Amino acid sequence: MMDYDRFLSRSAGLMQESAIRRMGSVLAQKRDIISFAPGYPAPETFPWSEFQEIARELLTGGDGAVLQYGPTRGFRPLLDTVAGIMAERGAPTAVERLLVSTGSQQGLDLVARVLVDPGDVVLVELPTYTGAITAFRNVQAEMAGVPQEADGISLDALDSVHAALTAQGRRIKFLYVVPNFQNPTGLLIGLKKRLSLLEWAERRDVLIVEDDPYRELFFEDSTTEDEVRPIRADDQGGRVIYLSSFSKTLAPGFRVAWIDAPAALAAKLEMAKQAEDLLTGSLDQRIIYEACRRGVLQRQLPLLRRHYQQKRDVMVEALRTAFDGRLSWPDPRGGFFLWATLPDRIDADRLIPRALNHGVIYVAGEAFFVNGSGKNLVRLSFSAPPPERIREGVRRFGAAVAEELDALASEAAPHTLEAPPR
Amino acid sequence: MMDYDRFLSRSAGLMQESAIRRMGSVLAQKRDIISFAPGYPAPETFPWSEFQEIARELLTGGDGAVLQYGPTRGFRPLLDTVAGIMAERGAPTAVERLLVSTGSQQGLDLVARVLVDPGDVVLVELPTYTGAITAFRNVQAEMAGVPQEADGISLDALDSVHAALTAQGRRIKFLYVVPNFQNPTGLLIGLKKRLSLLEWAERRDVLIVEDDPYRELFFEDSTTEDEVRPIRADDQGGRVIYLSSFSKTLAPGFRVAWIDAPAALAAKLEMAKQAEDLLTGSLDQRIIYEACRRGVLQRQLPLLRRHYQQKRDVMVEALRTAFDGRLSWPDPRGGFFLWATLPDRIDADRLIPRALNHGVIYVAGEAFFVNGSGKNLVRLSFSAPPPERIREGVRRFGAAVAEELDALASEAAPHTLEAPPR
Repeated sequence: MMDYDRFLSRSAGLMQESAIRRMGSVLAQKRDIISFAPGYPAPETFPWSEFQEIARELLTGGDGAVLQYGPTRGFRPLLDTVAGIMAERGAPTAVERLLVSTGSQQGLDLVARVLVDPGDVVLVELPTYTGAITAFRNVQAEMAGVPQEADGISLDALDSVHAALTAQGRRIKFLYVVPNFQNPTGLLIGLKKRLSLLEWAERRDVLIVEDDPYRELFFEDSTTEDEVRPIRADDQGGRVIYLSSFSKTLAPGFRVAWIDAPAALAAKLEMAKQAEDLLTGSLDQRIIYEACRRGVLQRQLPLLRRHYQQKRDVMVEALRTAFDGRLSWPDPRGGFFLWATLPDRIDADRLIPRALNHGVIYVAGEAFFVNGSGKNLVRLSFSAPPPERIREGVRRFGAAVAEELDALASEAAPHTLEAPPR
Repeated sequence: MMDYDRFLSRSAGLMQESAIRRMGSVLAQKRDIISFAPGYPAPETFPWSEFQEIARELLTGGDGAVLQYGPTRGFRPLLDTVAGIMAERGAPTAVERLLVSTGSQQGLDLVARVLVDPGDVVLVELPTYTGAITAFRNVQAEMAGVPQEADGISLDALDSVHAALTAQGRRIKFLYVVPNFQNPTGLLIGLKKRLSLLEWAERRDVLIVEDDPYRELFFEDSTTEDEVRPIRADDQGGRVIYLSSFSKTLAPGFRVAWIDAPAALAAKLEMAKQAEDLLTGSLDQRIIYEACRRGVLQRQLPLLRRHYQQKRDVMVEALRTAFDGRLSWPDPRGGFFLWATLPDRIDADRLIPRALNHGVIYVAGEAFFVNGSGKNLVRLSFSAPPPERIREGVRRFGAAVAEELDALASEAAPHTLEAPPR
């Protein structure tokens, strides 16, 4: 076997498989595991018959462009549709600012490639989305974490981190935030804080990368549409690069998302995409466009909000029953995730084998922290499993935690009884 | 307007729009332009009704995974299918060596990211595929060109270039070749030369990236299947990373291609892809898989070979008529491209406005050369336009060239008559 290490780039040497995707592999191998790990939407909510009809009409052969190469920026009618969506979100835009990306993961990757040189600093929330961490690490960014409060990223901590890095002569390119129902915490950045972030970015001459895949999935019992207003909507200074996606509202298998960026940056992002995959799937873009044009997306949104809100209810109720106060979490007000704190002594990563034995899996919190903290946190996705599986999964998770606490107690006990070592 | 230059990465600063894609933009603006520019397959050859039926069956909702996230490596049955295709090409492989990519453009990009650090050298053919140039430039590779002979890349020149660079202390990571019906020249690397390249790579400790999108499109009047045997088929030393695609045989709009690489590298490519776009479109992968499983691909291949061979014939015949010896080219034995040499004095890039005036467009050869040469060469794609448009396009191209020759002659004439400057 030849050793290929001498051929690898530095970034390839640093590459690690993401914790979430690794969970996916584990899952593929075992039977009857209830997964709270990946942030998968619920496929039973997908508008299958509408997609089927749209595909039938598109694939008649009447329009060769449906399966042909096409412009890197994206299918023009879809770009116009996205401009309409941006306007509805309070952020009117222009087509020259828009780019279709192959999922928001590609958006993050393109932004990183266009903005970051090795050693440049990217500021991220503590905790933050693992896919962003991976994309930023692949361009050899240094990531500096900023703690969050109940209304999102701490402004004081943000400025302190910025000041400390600047004093060290580091170049800070952008702040990455997930403003709505953050992955993994489920938190929202408060409206006032959003405006403060814009002022701060202007003052410190930093860009903001706003990653907003979950905003449509606000739960109407606790969140209004006003509260999910993008930071981008109030960006007068051209500080914000905004990413959003159809993955959580129509279906992720199409890999259709978008970036809204200042035109000069959109042009660079387009060139980066040209080298990366030429274009996002032509059929996929047209199916998404038709689903928007025919009102399918609009009809889906209230259904999805109710669907995930109900699942959130099921999980919260089951956790209360199973844990009886040993677990704490902020109730999610939208999105896919519940972010829970285990008893201090439990290491979420080391708990995984035991959880798998009980037939349940989650993502250990550590993966979301760029500073190595978060060992007693777990991200539980309630989006994909049906209610009865959520209940059963939480029961299993509760059993695994109880067993771990017993094991820790019995490990601890003999030690205190042993004679001290000589 | 804010100036964003201070935020750009070095590679973004270097990014350029590809000549071919730029042609696409020009095209979108003008009416009645016959395009020989992009290497688009002919959409009338796509198996529309089969795709329609496959999509109908996939989109019933019976299998949620059809529109869900999925493994980064690719849809497992498709990977198994690709393994079968590799075996048919004389290169049996294993699934752990395979990765589905979002088009071969992503394959090139992933290979570049995994292998190249800024300043590393990549050896390429003179001329070579512009998409590869762009992908390699984006990771700040230094590209060194190696001239081609009638049977492909010159081995002597290859070793001289290698020796000169090594003497300068440069690190050479890989040689990039398109072995079959090269883009843009249409040339094949001779079978003996393929074996010599493997020996050379072993001797010089270099990898070979073999990009093989056109191999199925050999024209049966001049090429046998034996002659398109991949270099990879005889690779005993694990030197070859092989890329191929369904874009030219089923349809490019699906963005489904693959990489076959030594397992250690495939693992790194997978991690790079995970950060880049998580996965290739789920529906797209399943449609391609079903088209293979149902024999659609196998039925298409002989039809496509005949289709493009006939178009090659039409173009060659039209060029002979229109140019009467002022243009020379090697007759394409497969693929999409005819590579033609204009009279010495004509600069193909400067000819473009005149060609557009006549309603025809091509790609000027310079874009394919990493050493700035190739000014009197053009790449003419005969793949997409119907026969009558090929004939008319060649007539227009002939008129543009004749006009340019007249203009050059009349520019030259007055100069010789002018009094010498004092």
